[in-house]
Amino acid sequence: MAKDKKTPRPRAETPKGFRDYFGADVTMRSEMLATIARVYHRYGFDALESSAVETVEALGKFLPDVDRPNAGVFAWQEDPDHEGENAKPGDWLALRYDLTAPLARVYAQHRNDLPLPYRRYAMGPVWRNEKPGPGRFRQFYQCDADTVGAASVAADAEICAMLADTLEEVGIPRGDYIVRINNRKVLNGILEVMGLPEGDAREAVLRTIDKFDKVGEAGVRELLTKGRLDASGAFIDGVGLDADQAEPVIAFLTSKADTMAATLDNLRAAVGASAIGVQGVDELAQIADLVAAQGYGPDRIVIDPSVVRGLGYYTGPVFEAELTFEIFDEKGRKRQFGSVAGGGRYDDLVKRFTGQEVPATGVSIGVDRLLAALREKGRMQAREQGPVVVTVMDRDRMADYQAMAGELRRAGIRAEVYLGNPKQFGNQLKYADKRASPVAIIEGGDEKARGVVQIKDLILGAKIAENATLEEWQSRPSQYEVPRDQMVAKVRDIIESHADA
Amino acid sequence: MAKDKKTPRPRAETPKGFRDYFGADVTMRSEMLATIARVYHRYGFDALESSAVETVEALGKFLPDVDRPNAGVFAWQEDPDHEGENAKPGDWLALRYDLTAPLARVYAQHRNDLPLPYRRYAMGPVWRNEKPGPGRFRQFYQCDADTVGAASVAADAEICAMLADTLEEVGIPRGDYIVRINNRKVLNGILEVMGLPEGDAREAVLRTIDKFDKVGEAGVRELLTKGRLDASGAFIDGVGLDADQAEPVIAFLTSKADTMAATLDNLRAAVGASAIGVQGVDELAQIADLVAAQGYGPDRIVIDPSVVRGLGYYTGPVFEAELTFEIFDEKGRKRQFGSVAGGGRYDDLVKRFTGQEVPATGVSIGVDRLLAALREKGRMQAREQGPVVVTVMDRDRMADYQAMAGELRRAGIRAEVYLGNPKQFGNQLKYADKRASPVAIIEGGDEKARGVVQIKDLILGAKIAENATLEEWQSRPSQYEVPRDQMVAKVRDIIESHADA
Repeated sequence: MAKDKKTPRPRAETPKGFRDYFGADVTMRSEMLATIARVYHRYGFDALESSAVETVEALGKFLPDVDRPNAGVFAWQEDPDHEGENAKPGDWLALRYDLTAPLARVYAQHRNDLPLPYRRYAMGPVWRNEKPGPGRFRQFYQCDADTVGAASVAADAEICAMLADTLEEVGIPRGDYIVRINNRKVLNGILEVMGLPEGDAREAVLRTIDKFDKVGEAGVRELLTKGRLDASGAFIDGVGLDADQAEPVIAFLTSKADTMAATLDNLRAAVGASAIGVQGVDELAQIADLVAAQGYGPDRIVIDPSVVRGLGYYTGPVFEAELTFEIFDEKGRKRQFGSVAGGGRYDDLVKRFTGQEVPATGVSIGVDRLLAALREKGRMQAREQGPVVVTVMDRDRMADYQAMAGELRRAGIRAEVYLGNPKQFGNQLKYADKRASPVAIIEGGDEKARGVVQIKDLILGAKIAENATLEEWQSRPSQYEVPRDQMVAKVRDIIESHADA
Repeated sequence: MAKDKKTPRPRAETPKGFRDYFGADVTMRSEMLATIARVYHRYGFDALESSAVETVEALGKFLPDVDRPNAGVFAWQEDPDHEGENAKPGDWLALRYDLTAPLARVYAQHRNDLPLPYRRYAMGPVWRNEKPGPGRFRQFYQCDADTVGAASVAADAEICAMLADTLEEVGIPRGDYIVRINNRKVLNGILEVMGLPEGDAREAVLRTIDKFDKVGEAGVRELLTKGRLDASGAFIDGVGLDADQAEPVIAFLTSKADTMAATLDNLRAAVGASAIGVQGVDELAQIADLVAAQGYGPDRIVIDPSVVRGLGYYTGPVFEAELTFEIFDEKGRKRQFGSVAGGGRYDDLVKRFTGQEVPATGVSIGVDRLLAALREKGRMQAREQGPVVVTVMDRDRMADYQAMAGELRRAGIRAEVYLGNPKQFGNQLKYADKRASPVAIIEGGDEKARGVVQIKDLILGAKIAENATLEEWQSRPSQYEVPRDQMVAKVRDIIESHADA
């Protein structure tokens, strides 16, 4: 590489909206993904890893988040050189923005080789070309399971049961979460009963309902009718329904009753004679029966018409998993942790490619949010234990120190030799501290001659330094001298003593 | 989404050079990555997951593969909208092409918070914007471990030991692999002794040496001197050395002797009085002592000056892991499987950002090649077992069937209910066959009334159908009727009987 002294140094920065993950943040996520994969696999789902890059044509525009109209993709044009002499302009390629659009492409491409129904799970990063902001990242993990080619709502019921199992297996206890189910068809029935024509008016109502979580019942009522002044002082135009017309929509959103049966009765009354509405209520009733028969009571899975996320995107049942415990938000206010997973039925995604309608339903777990929840509840270690550090007292005896580390590792103990400049011994102990090491090993010339090693219990040492009285300090030494051949056993004892504590 | 009937359907195709991975290909790789991570972690390396996207500026041009001059990145320009009103043109962003360039950026960015030395491992896809070809993909996995900030060759020795341990832990037995070590400094010493000035002439020699694996000793001799007619009939210009001048380079490349000590003697003779050359030989001698002291004999780790891959890129020790067993290539010829990992010391990657030289050394394992090797040796199942399939005899009793699948899963058995159209029972068994299911469960109205289920052993059934005589067929039924409450136990028995076989 030619070096031009005038070239300024590159900035060492992640691009805006991207971040790096270190240590426990990586390993905890890997473990969570492995746990989720295990549950999905046990339910009969097969792994799929599609390429991160897709043609823009194949991806289409199916982003479910209608409240993020700027959401876009990272895209670039294929170099036409790759296409030979008489090259056409290159294809536009892009990073996938979710795992559902690639599934539709994969299914359409490989359908002759895949079983029908095709159950697959997929996990990995997705990318959104959005304006970055605090806590809003442009690369994040999704973890999806979908069943393609099953028209029966038994597929939806199964996914809701699986979602409940998954949350419990990653460490959210029963009672701290709830899976809520709604159905787009019921809402369609209500819009039909209202006499609202298909097209723009219905789209406007759907977009408005999607704000129910944020603006509540009164807010939606305003937005469906004359409009609303939002918190920032801006006036948001209303859909223009009159007050009476808006009521069936509000009734639908608030129709959840004390029992599943009563909720279903409310919905049945609301959809009247609408065929699609009746079908939607029947589907919810079937799902309720199916999950109940498997022992999932309303403490885990409920029918709840206030679930609106994605109602505009999905075509049938819609589900959402919410964590119900309270946390303090950044302003110190108590609030529910909220949604960590969502999904539903989307029956026309594959049709784009093949012309044939293929029923499909699935769920996506927001792994980063779920990790944050577990951290919030103190159910996940924030930092992992570092390695045992074998210090270097005599740099000519590096081979001895590496042999010690090797012995510890063969005994299954995480260990390393200090590889920085060994001159200042204090730096070696500072390094061990920065690594959160449980133990340091010291073998100078004197110890070597006597056939012993010094073993420093760094966890106990830190506790003593923090709290102890002088008597305790003297009575509880945190450094031990043991014969060289007892090193591994003593290190193991120390590490186990802290694991038990 | 507006639907225009004239819009042609999108093509359901992965972009050229990309591919999808299904089922066992995904899970086997996950398991291998987890195994490698476990070894790296035990050696004291911490996980790092940097973003897939970097600024082009931060990535720089450090691709180690000098034989792929067209290698490029997938890049695009950041939307200036994200930068506010008086936006500068957006940054150029790109997908990472390896895991080393991002490490340099991460270390430079976070160095005040990271321990020194910083040992990190990283695994994940990288992307190369190359002309796709058969078996050449533009997205593939790397799995790296690097130590930043350790000048001692003890760091290199440790990585070679770790590489040997890793290969054995993923299933390559001792004897089937060898870790070979060379040193760029020895070569520099030889070039110095030859009186070859730094600059273009040395670069040309380095580029030539990199072809040693392909063209052999005679080929390199031709390329160093007058040039060479390659296999395609094209004439490749030579470096222009005269025959005598080329000899020290050839002597270096072929200096491996029967013992490590003899190899080192050959090298010491070759570098003569060159200070850098002597330093290089000393480093190799130290590494040889360090790995020997830990019990890694020449059956696992050797000094071998014929290792040339990356000699032009690295600045000190260079290492490569090769699988030594033979396979048949696509033309049916026997050949060694070859390289699955490589690495070395690169002391000026961080300097680009900070101006300070930071020593670093590391290794990258080609996970996809390693998986291919295990598959080749029959040490990896090509297909995973499918789920137990609970068939649907009566679609009104879906809740019963889902409850059965739930019971099986709670017992740790992978299971699912058939969710396609249940009308043709034959399709359900075909589905189970396509899924490689071990067992199908059947409960029609008659069975329900009698409190029993039929359990079909599909693996035994397939074996009988393939091989059995009529007598065997009759004497070895592959379908059992058991009381409903013994379903789980019987299914477990069947699955275990095949696992033992």
